[in-house]
Amino acid sequence: MSQRGVLNGTPVAVGAAATSRQFSSDAPPQNISRYPIPNKKDLPFDMLELMEEVETKGGFLPNVFKVLAHRPAEFRAFFSYYNELMNKETGGLTKADRELIVVATSIHNQCLYCVVSHSALHRIYSKKPTLADQVIVNYENAELSPRERVMLDFALAVCRSDTVTDQHFLSLEEVGFDREDAWDIAAIAAFFAMSNRLAHLTDMRPNAEFYNMGRMPRDKTKWEGEGK
Amino acid sequence: MSQRGVLNGTPVAVGAAATSRQFSSDAPPQNISRYPIPNKKDLPFDMLELMEEVETKGGFLPNVFKVLAHRPAEFRAFFSYYNELMNKETGGLTKADRELIVVATSIHNQCLYCVVSHSALHRIYSKKPTLADQVIVNYENAELSPRERVMLDFALAVCRSDTVTDQHFLSLEEVGFDREDAWDIAAIAAFFAMSNRLAHLTDMRPNAEFYNMGRMPRDKTKWEGEGK
Amino acid sequence: MSQRGVLNGTPVAVGAAATSRQFSSDAPPQNISRYPIPNKKDLPFDMLELMEEVETKGGFLPNVFKVLAHRPAEFRAFFSYYNELMNKETGGLTKADRELIVVATSIHNQCLYCVVSHSALHRIYSKKPTLADQVIVNYENAELSPRERVMLDFALAVCRSDTVTDQHFLSLEEVGFDREDAWDIAAIAAFFAMSNRLAHLTDMRPNAEFYNMGRMPRDKTKWEGEGK
Amino acid sequence: MSQRGVLNGTPVAVGAAATSRQFSSDAPPQNISRYPIPNKKDLPFDMLELMEEVETKGGFLPNVFKVLAHRPAEFRAFFSYYNELMNKETGGLTKADRELIVVATSIHNQCLYCVVSHSALHRIYSKKPTLADQVIVNYENAELSPRERVMLDFALAVCRSDTVTDQHFLSLEEVGFDREDAWDIAAIAAFFAMSNRLAHLTDMRPNAEFYNMGRMPRDKTKWEGEGK
Amino acid sequence: MSQRGVLNGTPVAVGAAATSRQFSSDAPPQNISRYPIPNKKDLPFDMLELMEEVETKGGFLPNVFKVLAHRPAEFRAFFSYYNELMNKETGGLTKADRELIVVATSIHNQCLYCVVSHSALHRIYSKKPTLADQVIVNYENAELSPRERVMLDFALAVCRSDTVTDQHFLSLEEVGFDREDAWDIAAIAAFFAMSNRLAHLTDMRPNAEFYNMGRMPRDKTKWEGEGK
Amino acid sequence: MSQRGVLNGTPVAVGAAATSRQFSSDAPPQNISRYPIPNKKDLPFDMLELMEEVETKGGFLPNVFKVLAHRPAEFRAFFSYYNELMNKETGGLTKADRELIVVATSIHNQCLYCVVSHSALHRIYSKKPTLADQVIVNYENAELSPRERVMLDFALAVCRSDTVTDQHFLSLEEVGFDREDAWDIAAIAAFFAMSNRLAHLTDMRPNAEFYNMGRMPRDKTKWEGEGK
Repeated sequence: MSQRGVLNGTPVAVGAAATSRQFSSDAPPQNISRYPIPNKKDLPFDMLELMEEVETKGGFLPNVFKVLAHRPAEFRAFFSYYNELMNKETGGLTKADRELIVVATSIHNQCLYCVVSHSALHRIYSKKPTLADQVIVNYENAELSPRERVMLDFALAVCRSDTVTDQHFLSLEEVGFDREDAWDIAAIAAFFAMSNRLAHLTDMRPNAEFYNMGRMPRDKTKWEGEGK
Repeated sequence: MSQRGVLNGTPVAVGAAATSRQFSSDAPPQNISRYPIPNKKDLPFDMLELMEEVETKGGFLPNVFKVLAHRPAEFRAFFSYYNELMNKETGGLTKADRELIVVATSIHNQCLYCVVSHSALHRIYSKKPTLADQVIVNYENAELSPRERVMLDFALAVCRSDTVTDQHFLSLEEVGFDREDAWDIAAIAAFFAMSNRLAHLTDMRPNAEFYNMGRMPRDKTKWEGEGK
Repeated sequence: MSQRGVLNGTPVAVGAAATSRQFSSDAPPQNISRYPIPNKKDLPFDMLELMEEVETKGGFLPNVFKVLAHRPAEFRAFFSYYNELMNKETGGLTKADRELIVVATSIHNQCLYCVVSHSALHRIYSKKPTLADQVIVNYENAELSPRERVMLDFALAVCRSDTVTDQHFLSLEEVGFDREDAWDIAAIAAFFAMSNRLAHLTDMRPNAEFYNMGRMPRDKTKWEGEGK
Repeated sequence: MSQRGVLNGTPVAVGAAATSRQFSSDAPPQNISRYPIPNKKDLPFDMLELMEEVETKGGFLPNVFKVLAHRPAEFRAFFSYYNELMNKETGGLTKADRELIVVATSIHNQCLYCVVSHSALHRIYSKKPTLADQVIVNYENAELSPRERVMLDFALAVCRSDTVTDQHFLSLEEVGFDREDAWDIAAIAAFFAMSNRLAHLTDMRPNAEFYNMGRMPRDKTKWEGEGK
Repeated sequence: MSQRGVLNGTPVAVGAAATSRQFSSDAPPQNISRYPIPNKKDLPFDMLELMEEVETKGGFLPNVFKVLAHRPAEFRAFFSYYNELMNKETGGLTKADRELIVVATSIHNQCLYCVVSHSALHRIYSKKPTLADQVIVNYENAELSPRERVMLDFALAVCRSDTVTDQHFLSLEEVGFDREDAWDIAAIAAFFAMSNRLAHLTDMRPNAEFYNMGRMPRDKTKWEGEGK
Repeated sequence: MSQRGVLNGTPVAVGAAATSRQFSSDAPPQNISRYPIPNKKDLPFDMLELMEEVETKGGFLPNVFKVLAHRPAEFRAFFSYYNELMNKETGGLTKADRELIVVATSIHNQCLYCVVSHSALHRIYSKKPTLADQVIVNYENAELSPRERVMLDFALAVCRSDTVTDQHFLSLEEVGFDREDAWDIAAIAAFFAMSNRLAHLTDMRPNAEFYNMGRMPRDKTKWEGEGK
């Protein structure tokens, strides 16, 4: 898979290189899932390669890779889908927009893993250290632009499985989103409707690193290349 | 993809062969999605191959293939994932069980496409022509076995994005489901949490064939080989 | 009414002739109610006469007659009320409209008996074999006319016991319903609010015949005289 | 109808006699319904007879009679049904019990007419001047006997259109209610599910007399004969 | 505290004088709270003084004073706050308006004590003996002025902890409420959000006197001086 | 007020001294409330004294003091009540417990100010830098002790205005909370039911300092004296 582009959900330091196949968090993984975490030596090469690439570039391996590795075929489909939706800046959605959709819908679903990890990614990409926290509490009075508000209104409609109507598309158009943007917003909300529920199934726990990532000014420099 | 097994969600007539690349429903597809349906000639070969295989075996091409073809990369990830979860009889779940989970969770999400198409598949696989209709109205008083009831209780908990607890696993164990079965049930509920929302986005309409499929006794013979 | 050949679940004008006292479904009735089903020989003449007329004309006796016969006085009031609301084409509501109201409100109340039996009647009267199935899943994206949509919006408002306001009447007027039509819509929704709950009490099960009635083109001819 | 017993829902003063066919509240009725109130002279004899009997015995004519007279055939079915359910002390339910069920379910449905009129009747029949007020606010901490609490738990389950299960019957049996009592409780809750919605349709307003009826000790004597 | 104005929430008979330190309801208080009621002799002087003043003027001591006396410091803060919000006619809100807000929000929270006691106070202040009863059942069809309706719409939005937006203030302005009135409405709704929950904690029971207070015309004279 | 103890809800730096009456955040306060913020020179001495004490000890003045100063009398009652409930370690509740109750109930009410500021205080008092974040997303799978879980179950029951029953007290007793602890838990939940709504009214914004407070290990030392 890696030949058709990087498949991950983590920030990547420019110029980083995979130098090792060691997971940085080699401590006992028993607390991050209620299902077994496979040993690296038992993993197929393509999965291992992906995980190492992600870890090397981001500095640590997000637990979702370890937890979902319990089912290799589903792992491949999951990250293939994830990569198509999240790791791009095409259309009218920045990476920060995409992360904000994940935060707003995942808090609706009370998903610990996704809220903590994707609010970290939002802080990195947006360089706004408090907006995700505001959205977590109440996106209705968060310091959002009108465009962001309409984006989240639609994402939440999809998240709740509301019937989508022409009115939704009209509201999106009023702030500049076209039909392909609408698909992106909805597909992200839909994909995380799935992800949130898999996290509930496995009791997936966020890496400790996510809680504070992107909160301090010094972090901003580090991730600067990513948010574009 | 076809080399690693048939990738579809439709019943397959024993001995059927792909004799043509024509879609049987070549009528204007404008009513099946609010997004454009790509022309066959513009589709990549792998997608076309999959669609023809499905159509040949099942007798018609379910609209979900046409509608999601609007985004080829997402199409591939979607059906790859679908195939891992639905087209198998491994573990403690029959194909009929899997379809029943889809029906019960999709009606919760009020998804027209998934309810109509997967209740058809349930009728075929289970040879029970009315159980899906009962579950659509109210699974709480449908004619379910205790095992099926617990299975749907758990699927609905996942569907609602409830916090999964040890008690859920204990209830499943009492009727014979182990932890891998729990993963299967939850992953199907989670995947259709996504699918239902994509169907809402696109206003995906079920093929006319699905409404009556498997209702009449004569249908039973036809699909007999599939339900195993 | 009997002169225009009624298939119904309603009381019968004096002069109708009972040609047989046999219930066609003389199999043990133990599965259709959690309350006892009275023996025919113990039923008062007026009830028996009504039931025979219904069975003769419709081909089978809907289980609601057998189940509610447990309380003869309530039986009489119930079917007298039912007859006033359902078996007519007066005002702005066709028989098919009335059945659609029953389907849309009964699915809200998750009533197996009423959804299955009245979606059958809707198929017969409307000659639309799939519309009721669509309404069962989600009336918001069913293939309804604007008039039908407003009709169901109001029926659902009544079903939920919303406070009815002048705005409701204005919306109805915009699509051609007057105040008497509004009463009809609301009274049907209100009557089935009761019926749905009686079906829950008794665990009333639909006759097997209802599930497929009106689905096939050949059925259309049979019931053609009925839908007018 | 009157030959098979009094058909009404109002208390009757001992020894009162029908001396006149005049409605005592002959003031303009425009405020009690959003539908027209028929003139007495236009009413069929049987309806008039019933209304006079009720008014003479109770001291005033409850507005529900005037409001529903707009539809004579439905009026007859409604009061026939009402009479079967409410005006009796058979089985395990007193008249006060029946009124309490109406109060508890009608407040759930926010029905002004039914709450105000039936809490008045409950005060009269029960001789408890404050219990209905407590149930209106919150039956969970009202001064109910355990038997009354279970009765209302079941009535509310029916009111919400919950699926009725064997567990409901077991709970009722534990406090002495048999299956026929269960039917009575559920049928009353179901009938008022209908009545509440008809009151919303018509914006039915309670007679001024109901608000204070049965609150003062001197009322107790007056209605003493009724509550048995 | 009494030197800076009367601190209470009860009506005061004109010309009444504190002649005694006896509570009029000296009967065992065990039924008014699930927490102990302190003996008068153990109460600090300022609390006793307040309670006597309230009792003397109103004719009885509302149970909330006895129940909250279990925690003297919290008692002082509670009644100090209460006094600032309720016992005044400043701004655009009459005393009757304030009581109506309490009734409408307390019934939402199903608080027996607050609904029963403050509907009594509303009857006294407004001289409308039935409006509070209507609001208790359903403020949406109660006989409210447009101004009262908007006031309660806002109070209920606050009661539900909705996000307050500029639209709320615009709606209030349309019927004549300025920003300070908005604060008053919201602060009363917020204070009783607290009070209702304290009443649930303690199972606080209303004094018997409240149920009938202000219902009869003769009461109107008695409290006439209070409503201004 | 200061003579009877410090009245505040903010952390205090060891050894800090009040050297000035200047607010440290003298920047325009226009973004912290939709109501005017009074000028310091217009504030009564007691309020000013309290605010300076809080600011000096905590390093900055929490915006709630400025926002509520718009209504001095309510300000006094609010902080007097607050002080009674929060700034103590009496009974079975630590300061960290109290803050956790505020976080869990305020997120239920989607109150930005209270969630952000009190999760900061919880981090300081508990020295657990991530637990509040977990509770914000979903207290059901946060890393809580059984005792904390039962405490929050009860706090949430009060927060939702559930009817409190003996069962609640039994559950609390099983993990060691007595009736006075129950009062404390409920009173905090009730007080913040009020506070959350006042924050919604005023659109109260948290100080920037709160977002990161207590997240970094170096903070732990600083606040060490406070959590006892």
